[in-house]
Amino acid sequence: MRVTDLIERKRDGGRLSRDEWAGLMRFYAAGDIPDYQMAAMAMAVYFRGMEGDEIEGLTAAMLDSGDRLALGHLGRPRVDKHSTGGVGDKVSLVLAPLVAACGVAVPMMSGRALGHTGGTLDKLEAIPGFRTDLSLDRAVAQLETLGCVLIGQTAEIAPADKRLYALRGATATVPAIPLIAASIMSKKLAEDLTGLVLDVTTGAGAFLTRLEDSLALARTMIALGERRGCRTVALLTDMDAPLGVACGNAVEVAESIELLRGGGPADVRAVTLALATEMLLVAGVAADPATARAQATSTLDGGAALEMFRRIVVAQGGPAGLVDDPAAHLAAAPVRRVITASGPGIVQRVEPKRVGHAIIGLGGGRSRVTDVVDPAVGVLVHVRPGATVEAGEVLLTILARDSAGADAAVAELADAVLLGEAAPAPRPLISHRVTAGGVEELAGGVTH
Amino acid sequence: MRVTDLIERKRDGGRLSRDEWAGLMRFYAAGDIPDYQMAAMAMAVYFRGMEGDEIEGLTAAMLDSGDRLALGHLGRPRVDKHSTGGVGDKVSLVLAPLVAACGVAVPMMSGRALGHTGGTLDKLEAIPGFRTDLSLDRAVAQLETLGCVLIGQTAEIAPADKRLYALRGATATVPAIPLIAASIMSKKLAEDLTGLVLDVTTGAGAFLTRLEDSLALARTMIALGERRGCRTVALLTDMDAPLGVACGNAVEVAESIELLRGGGPADVRAVTLALATEMLLVAGVAADPATARAQATSTLDGGAALEMFRRIVVAQGGPAGLVDDPAAHLAAAPVRRVITASGPGIVQRVEPKRVGHAIIGLGGGRSRVTDVVDPAVGVLVHVRPGATVEAGEVLLTILARDSAGADAAVAELADAVLLGEAAPAPRPLISHRVTAGGVEELAGGVTH
Repeated sequence: MRVTDLIERKRDGGRLSRDEWAGLMRFYAAGDIPDYQMAAMAMAVYFRGMEGDEIEGLTAAMLDSGDRLALGHLGRPRVDKHSTGGVGDKVSLVLAPLVAACGVAVPMMSGRALGHTGGTLDKLEAIPGFRTDLSLDRAVAQLETLGCVLIGQTAEIAPADKRLYALRGATATVPAIPLIAASIMSKKLAEDLTGLVLDVTTGAGAFLTRLEDSLALARTMIALGERRGCRTVALLTDMDAPLGVACGNAVEVAESIELLRGGGPADVRAVTLALATEMLLVAGVAADPATARAQATSTLDGGAALEMFRRIVVAQGGPAGLVDDPAAHLAAAPVRRVITASGPGIVQRVEPKRVGHAIIGLGGGRSRVTDVVDPAVGVLVHVRPGATVEAGEVLLTILARDSAGADAAVAELADAVLLGEAAPAPRPLISHRVTAGGVEELAGGVTH
Repeated sequence: MRVTDLIERKRDGGRLSRDEWAGLMRFYAAGDIPDYQMAAMAMAVYFRGMEGDEIEGLTAAMLDSGDRLALGHLGRPRVDKHSTGGVGDKVSLVLAPLVAACGVAVPMMSGRALGHTGGTLDKLEAIPGFRTDLSLDRAVAQLETLGCVLIGQTAEIAPADKRLYALRGATATVPAIPLIAASIMSKKLAEDLTGLVLDVTTGAGAFLTRLEDSLALARTMIALGERRGCRTVALLTDMDAPLGVACGNAVEVAESIELLRGGGPADVRAVTLALATEMLLVAGVAADPATARAQATSTLDGGAALEMFRRIVVAQGGPAGLVDDPAAHLAAAPVRRVITASGPGIVQRVEPKRVGHAIIGLGGGRSRVTDVVDPAVGVLVHVRPGATVEAGEVLLTILARDSAGADAAVAELADAVLLGEAAPAPRPLISHRVTAGGVEELAGGVTH
């Protein structure tokens, strides 16, 4: 097998066999195929796509490249959530302890910042001492005692995917549907789940900006999951504006703690409860949607989710007092700047990609594989599309390491909030529900 | 400037400014942009192309990334040739000394094997002791004394191109016309030439298999050359079958010496004399094509070209006796195998890419940047399209390092020579002549 031949065949619109994908990923994981060849292959896939059995073959190859959890002995349903990501999306930090507090095992394996979007691992690591690099043995032990663990993809899980995932972010090959589907499912299927809920984001701040692409991705992933006996459901959620107020690593942890106390921005809370409802349903611990939602809401507002989060933080090396006094433990940015409204108006758009790129520029994201992330920096988004603002009102707060970084962020974000005179058309926050049975359009959902 | 943004813009069909190309290549040459990002960019360019001023900007950036020769003091015309390459193309080894022996300075800077095609440098380095890595100062000194030097692209010349050229071969991004044009012209324009003759190959063994692509490449390169005051002419030559008999490094050196003695295969000789004629014309040392051709022919057949080659070999560290007894100096392959005709017939095709890939498999080419080339291995091609063969007649001879390599080459080459009953349509060996003034179709050219 010559790698250049495989790249050339895909470049020219051909297909690779399952064995060829298997060989490619095995050698790549072993370091015998260099990143530059895989980067060229990823870009060729971006343009040419992959057929269903190629995606299945790639997913199987990435799954088989590493170890898997074996969790049958837990004696209860195992359910995880995956989001295709966005700006300000800290849902995982709230959802995992919430669902675990309802009696479902949640072996949550998350990723790092990629392109303009944030990553749950980087957020968790903004908590001093918090370890996301647990061994699989230790992760299983924590699942046995707490019912929840928040870890990164260990070197043992889908190592081929781990390398490719980092590479895609640095080579503008993130938004290739087959690669997204295979990457997500190779990790999730390694968790020995009985159920999986997918949060497929759509809009200017998502990797996929068009609804039809998001639906295609949801269907592809559901097929991969169901074929292996994992009940898989997807919600399509809006990522045309940042989610919540806080965007950045430490500030998103702080906002997650607000949510776990029953407060926090309404949009993040709504998405979190909707996903929790689906997770309780695929887990089978609630019989119907209304019961599931009531259970999720009372677990969040009654403090059980917060308590579970506290126990997870302590179990994974973080400070016991974090949830009581986040500001005492989380890094704060030394330099603050605000961007204010130039005149009165109605917010038409808040460009999530601009916010994401500003965070990369501030040092809080990653434009290449080896970038180190600064937890303290970020952007606070004080307005939502449809909000009426006065002249001089603060729209955004920039949290920077130094004034040079702040200046660059001000320039990047100067036009990030677009004002106008008329109210913009509302976008539903949760637009579709997709199952193996089909697509259901959700009417009357809340907006940001 | 974020590299991922530039890749993304090109991926989505946008254009980069001259400054962006300049910055990209400057950082790439300095090692501050990793190969995997440039590989993704190259693949995006393959699919999206580049506009004229982007190509000009890229060429200028690669040219400016290094030093240039200054050869005005030589007091005579400086002309080089460039070929887009193929299988069995050893023309440079004959042409450079031939034209130099006619009084034209030939500062020939060549490349290495790339993809399935051979590279002049690898061939020259099959000569024991031959150094192609001369400093520019030493190259200029040799031009002053001999009028000819055969070197590689030094670290000083277009370093950005040097890195990208190697990368393209390993990432299936060789056949992107803008990248080919910029790569070639950034090197050639660094040679301070008064004239340049381009050998643009077309057919199954060339990077470009379609005539219209070859014409587009010729026009692009001619525009880049003429804009900088270098008279540039292109011949389109056939690379639908290997050129000559010998394919491989040491055996091509031996065949070159045959040609310099006035012998050798007719097709290589014809291409060499046609290119020499054009070089003498753009140099202005011959007034018209007939005079130029006569001068080239007598210089080749009279031994002056051979004598020039001997002096070049000695000046660059090779053995003085090489041209007298090549076999005593060149590496020979320990294992030989033949492929014979299964029945009588007429040769329809000899697949040059199969031959090139077999040579890579034998260790004589390069499928990744860091591969080391074995000079001894290769393939001898004993038949041409249109030849009548008997059952059992030897079609190909495989020259291998060991029997495992030979077995693999036999498998690769089993169908490389296609036999049939009717004579195939002849293809002209030299089909078009392109100048700044336009395209001239050449009638009645010889075939392989």
